[in-house]
Amino acid sequence: MSKPLILVVNDDGITAPGIRALVEAVSNLGEVVVVAPDSPQSGMGHAITINNPLRLKKSNIFGDIKAYECSGTPADCVKLGVDKVLHRQPDLCVSGINHGSNSSINIIYSGTMSAAMEASLEGIPSVGFSLCDYAHDADFSTAALFANHIASLILKYGLPKYALLNVNIPKGAAQDIKGMKICRQAEAKWEEEYDERTDPMGRKYYWLTGKFVNHDHGQDTDEWALANSYVSVVPVHHDLTAHHVIPFINANWEFGSPHKPDDIPQLDNNRFNL
Amino acid sequence: MSKPLILVVNDDGITAPGIRALVEAVSNLGEVVVVAPDSPQSGMGHAITINNPLRLKKSNIFGDIKAYECSGTPADCVKLGVDKVLHRQPDLCVSGINHGSNSSINIIYSGTMSAAMEASLEGIPSVGFSLCDYAHDADFSTAALFANHIASLILKYGLPKYALLNVNIPKGAAQDIKGMKICRQAEAKWEEEYDERTDPMGRKYYWLTGKFVNHDHGQDTDEWALANSYVSVVPVHHDLTAHHVIPFINANWEFGSPHKPDDIPQLDNNRFNL
Repeated sequence: MSKPLILVVNDDGITAPGIRALVEAVSNLGEVVVVAPDSPQSGMGHAITINNPLRLKKSNIFGDIKAYECSGTPADCVKLGVDKVLHRQPDLCVSGINHGSNSSINIIYSGTMSAAMEASLEGIPSVGFSLCDYAHDADFSTAALFANHIASLILKYGLPKYALLNVNIPKGAAQDIKGMKICRQAEAKWEEEYDERTDPMGRKYYWLTGKFVNHDHGQDTDEWALANSYVSVVPVHHDLTAHHVIPFINANWEFGSPHKPDDIPQLDNNRFNL
Repeated sequence: MSKPLILVVNDDGITAPGIRALVEAVSNLGEVVVVAPDSPQSGMGHAITINNPLRLKKSNIFGDIKAYECSGTPADCVKLGVDKVLHRQPDLCVSGINHGSNSSINIIYSGTMSAAMEASLEGIPSVGFSLCDYAHDADFSTAALFANHIASLILKYGLPKYALLNVNIPKGAAQDIKGMKICRQAEAKWEEEYDERTDPMGRKYYWLTGKFVNHDHGQDTDEWALANSYVSVVPVHHDLTAHHVIPFINANWEFGSPHKPDDIPQLDNNRFNL
């Protein structure tokens, strides 16, 4: 049997310490190929590049491990890597290790997780890793240990189709971590405030600031796991349907009629001459 | 009772014909305020602006309707609009009308839907509208009719907390539409290929191309509804947890042990001197 083929991506860019730690963490598990952004892409969500062409450039940053830097987003790296770099469908895609948490609602803003989700859409078992440490000199070694362990578990046991994993690792030494918990995404949110400033030309501008607030007191969430020194492992999928809301709407929206155009009052405010 | 406060956003930019149709569609339902990107933001997914400040500029593009153009992404427009433009929490956020479909998996790449989701995270009932027509001179009048109808239904009946709606409208005349269907997101995907070209300097570059393939034969999906001349209405939420996968992993991943660091083989390939 040939060695597993492992695609490594991230959103902090190919020179970030987190991807170096991840490449090392999985390099004993198979043939590793890196396709990562040529510049940091944090907060890019699931952005893809539609109106501009992409560039791909070979890099020797990881020695004898094949690596390419890509001019696009994390999701672009996966799409382009699978189509133009890899000689076959990879057995695993690992993304990260992100420098900072992607737990709870952070997943929807996360380039790290969008790369992993893009891979899962291609049918590739995939996982994103994030270290809950924003320090400039964050130590990725504990996160790398768990990345290796979880990557080997996925290669051994697989994942259900279209499922991927969102793994967050608490900061600190390995011996302080109690283990891993399989969790759901906590119902937490950012409470934003913009810091309003005035530039030298007298014009206002705004910096995003905010605090992360967890209103979810469940003990089965990623936030609970992380606060209690566990590695959180949230299985994720791309079906955003709120299935429980379908009966609510069918019951409330006067669905005796299927809302045909004839039943709908016509617009009479044609102020813009549509 | 005061008039409902309605925030209008989009991803095609404040000058796009779709947002003009949407402003008109909801202008008889309440006090309308527009905060929209100053340039097109298609395919931006749930990107937010972290490392740059944002600008906000008053616009008179919609006459006496209050409007601002924002230098950021669709999600930024909602965050900044709620914090700095609106005098109170809006009663409804409408996003669009997008020029092109956001059905099925397109939702994860969609700036239109990320703006609506951002609003729902703030606790605002919200909905994104998209017209399934890519023609340069697409006619938004049928979509506007349904946008008005659905916005008024949400104002009347509300939505469960953190639920939002992904509404797609088939192209064509209103009389050809059979009505509305409340649906789930179809399990469809893009099969991508990159078009490889060589620039005048001899370097390769890549354009994203691809075709949309629906492998989902359910008659309860948005793709089925659209193919059968119905407006599709998919209730959406931000919980990406694949709840059905939690028992799979707990059963398969040798969880007699909680995977403490002591149980995990240490990494011995310290090739990068982490």
